Amino acid sequence: MKRRTPDQQDETVAGNGLLHRRALLGAAGIAGAGIGLHTTGAAAEPLAEPPWGLTIGNDTPPYQTPSKFAGNVVRSLSNPRFEPRSSLSRTPHHLLEGSTTPNGLHFTINHTGIPDIDPRLHRLLIHGLVRRPLVFTLDALLRYPLTSRPAFVECGGNSAPLFSPKPIQANVQALHGLSSCAEWTGVKLSTLLDECGVDPSAKWFIAEGGDAPHLMRSVPLSKGLDDAMIALYQNGEPLMPGNGFPMRLLLPGWEGNLNIKFLRRIKLVTEPAMSFWESQVYTEPMPARSETKGKSYNFTFLNEVKSFITRPSPGQDLKQPGLYEISGIAYSGRGKIAKVMVSADGGRSWAQAALQAPVMAKAFTRFRLPWRWNGGPALLQSRAWDDQGAFQPTRAAFVAARGELEAEPSIMAFKNHHINVITSWAVDQHGTVRHAYA
Amino acid sequence: MKRRTPDQQDETVAGNGLLHRRALLGAAGIAGAGIGLHTTGAAAEPLAEPPWGLTIGNDTPPYQTPSKFAGNVVRSLSNPRFEPRSSLSRTPHHLLEGSTTPNGLHFTINHTGIPDIDPRLHRLLIHGLVRRPLVFTLDALLRYPLTSRPAFVECGGNSAPLFSPKPIQANVQALHGLSSCAEWTGVKLSTLLDECGVDPSAKWFIAEGGDAPHLMRSVPLSKGLDDAMIALYQNGEPLMPGNGFPMRLLLPGWEGNLNIKFLRRIKLVTEPAMSFWESQVYTEPMPARSETKGKSYNFTFLNEVKSFITRPSPGQDLKQPGLYEISGIAYSGRGKIAKVMVSADGGRSWAQAALQAPVMAKAFTRFRLPWRWNGGPALLQSRAWDDQGAFQPTRAAFVAARGELEAEPSIMAFKNHHINVITSWAVDQHGTVRHAYA
Repeated sequence: MKRRTPDQQDETVAGNGLLHRRALLGAAGIAGAGIGLHTTGAAAEPLAEPPWGLTIGNDTPPYQTPSKFAGNVVRSLSNPRFEPRSSLSRTPHHLLEGSTTPNGLHFTINHTGIPDIDPRLHRLLIHGLVRRPLVFTLDALLRYPLTSRPAFVECGGNSAPLFSPKPIQANVQALHGLSSCAEWTGVKLSTLLDECGVDPSAKWFIAEGGDAPHLMRSVPLSKGLDDAMIALYQNGEPLMPGNGFPMRLLLPGWEGNLNIKFLRRIKLVTEPAMSFWESQVYTEPMPARSETKGKSYNFTFLNEVKSFITRPSPGQDLKQPGLYEISGIAYSGRGKIAKVMVSADGGRSWAQAALQAPVMAKAFTRFRLPWRWNGGPALLQSRAWDDQGAFQPTRAAFVAARGELEAEPSIMAFKNHHINVITSWAVDQHGTVRHAYA
Repeated sequence: MKRRTPDQQDETVAGNGLLHRRALLGAAGIAGAGIGLHTTGAAAEPLAEPPWGLTIGNDTPPYQTPSKFAGNVVRSLSNPRFEPRSSLSRTPHHLLEGSTTPNGLHFTINHTGIPDIDPRLHRLLIHGLVRRPLVFTLDALLRYPLTSRPAFVECGGNSAPLFSPKPIQANVQALHGLSSCAEWTGVKLSTLLDECGVDPSAKWFIAEGGDAPHLMRSVPLSKGLDDAMIALYQNGEPLMPGNGFPMRLLLPGWEGNLNIKFLRRIKLVTEPAMSFWESQVYTEPMPARSETKGKSYNFTFLNEVKSFITRPSPGQDLKQPGLYEISGIAYSGRGKIAKVMVSADGGRSWAQAALQAPVMAKAFTRFRLPWRWNGGPALLQSRAWDDQGAFQPTRAAFVAARGELEAEPSIMAFKNHHINVITSWAVDQHGTVRHAYA
């Protein structure tokens, strides 16, 4: 193991206490440097015996679920009484670590509840501009070559609160919880399209879900022949009901609702369907300047590079000055994360965070950086770059480009999609962490 | 995308129908080659509407769990009535895919049930031959530098049924289900040992669990300074109760019970404790030849390289001749999987399987190979090599080296530990899949 000298261990690399990303890792003599987060105890034997060391525990269930003491590690629900409207659940990023979202906590959006689909009766039809339309059962798909990959899925409306004129006081789950990452396993769509025989006139395909809304979206055929997948497994097990059981379309790096759940149909066509979802909902108006007034962006497929700090974040107040680890998530729909820079002084100075290997394309990448909080005000930010050269804009630059909020509040629902601006957490002298603009 | 010619697509590379590992992937004109697992339908519009396309579905829970139609995708329980003995639960490998075991399905072994540990009250003590003994709370550990990695955990008794003189008719869950793989996140033990200051006389450490059995094992200090981790998160969320919540020792690649769950103490010492578990349980007698009679192997730390086919496997009978994908898991406690060879004719000929990237050290690696079943008898096997040059032994060679079963059945409980022999599945002319020796 490579050792660092005491000077290196505590090397300050940017303002307000940011330390080198390799500080403290396997550092000899760290005790001298003073992480100091322990209790120095007499540590006499025998050890104290808490009640769980003296009694029989609980039985073993067929499918295990979290400890009752992790009862706060759950998704937040937009529609807990299941009223007749869409139901959103958000991932509690502030309570998670690593690069995987466990299946219990993957975000979901369902417009008419979660269907109970019998996989023995479910069918996938591929038709339209193909040599022969084909129907696939789940059992048939399981005999095709399978492939696995990690991929994030993110709603186009994730991070929407950051378009608000003033910083909404909410935690990272409320602000960024409509994004999750899993290992998906399934059949490449290109394999099935080859089996059907694509007509040369086909340029798009329409994917349609089998639940009541029959949500449909148009997708360029080139994506279908690239890395699109009919996903059957999520983190090793069959898809979760809220995530599309028994099968969904996976378009790695592309806007969440395009990844059609409960997939029942793929129809090859010459041009997009201009469905309700693509013409009315997932469409951002262009700035109200003369040359763009009344026009809209359309087909914003990609989720651009984004990052946010998950720890510390609002609700996780700092109890005392000293060493902390800043930890967060970065990802890009274009490819791999190339670097993440972190600031503790609102962007005046930056330090490069460590990226957890392996860094995978279109998947969550965990970044971390040690930080010594001096007990004073701090403004924490992260900014990510991907390997295609894209990077996160400042909030000010993004809002200027998209156009300030119009008078009609109805338009906000469109302008606040695909926001990937820098997120800022303000720490005050009491250690309280709040959402801020900087 | 690189296209293969029709000849290459269907390239037979080993006996009894094994195809090239890149056959069928993105192959142009595959329809001609005839995967033929679909139903060619008139596919007329409008599509039929199953009931779930016509009704409101279910509400969204804070923590989602599998579909009721995936009710068979559960762990098998050794002690379902929770009688006063150990409780084992086994991972249903035959129903999973990819390289991750979801948290609900990770195998567990608990000797007095699963404790309900309050993480606010739990403490980890590091003492013994250190400059200063230290006590850590969970909150304190969360401020240290964290790291993530995938790692399998495997019980020393996994695959034990394969030592039986005749092949036990059971499925892959029963035979190999005491092995699972997750992404673990935590603090490197070396970081905490540095903080305590290791006395030069320390050569081992004793790790002890906080639940009622206070299971303790001795571990060479060199492993503690290498890749040992105090794991706090499992696939992104806090550890599952059965897997050690709120913290466990993770010794990547080393026998399961050494990865002490509910970890409450690490004591640095000069020599092993020779605890009950290491002197009586996890000890394999040496062959009863003159020079080794009465002696035992001890401290078999490593889980050696292993692989097994999960699909098809017993219980997943083949319904018709034609194309199937052979899929399985390989892993090694020494490092990365280098290659997996597959046979469909009981080892007379072999073909190299595709390995799902990224191949990670001491973690599950998914392997896959296309196979065209001709409807006759077949004997499916897999054999893995790791990047340290180790490879799986045949069953015959392993049993000869370990020594045939003695008269006393009591000794079998020891001789059948750390079995990593080739597993064989026999397919008969009806498509029935059975466990076999070959």
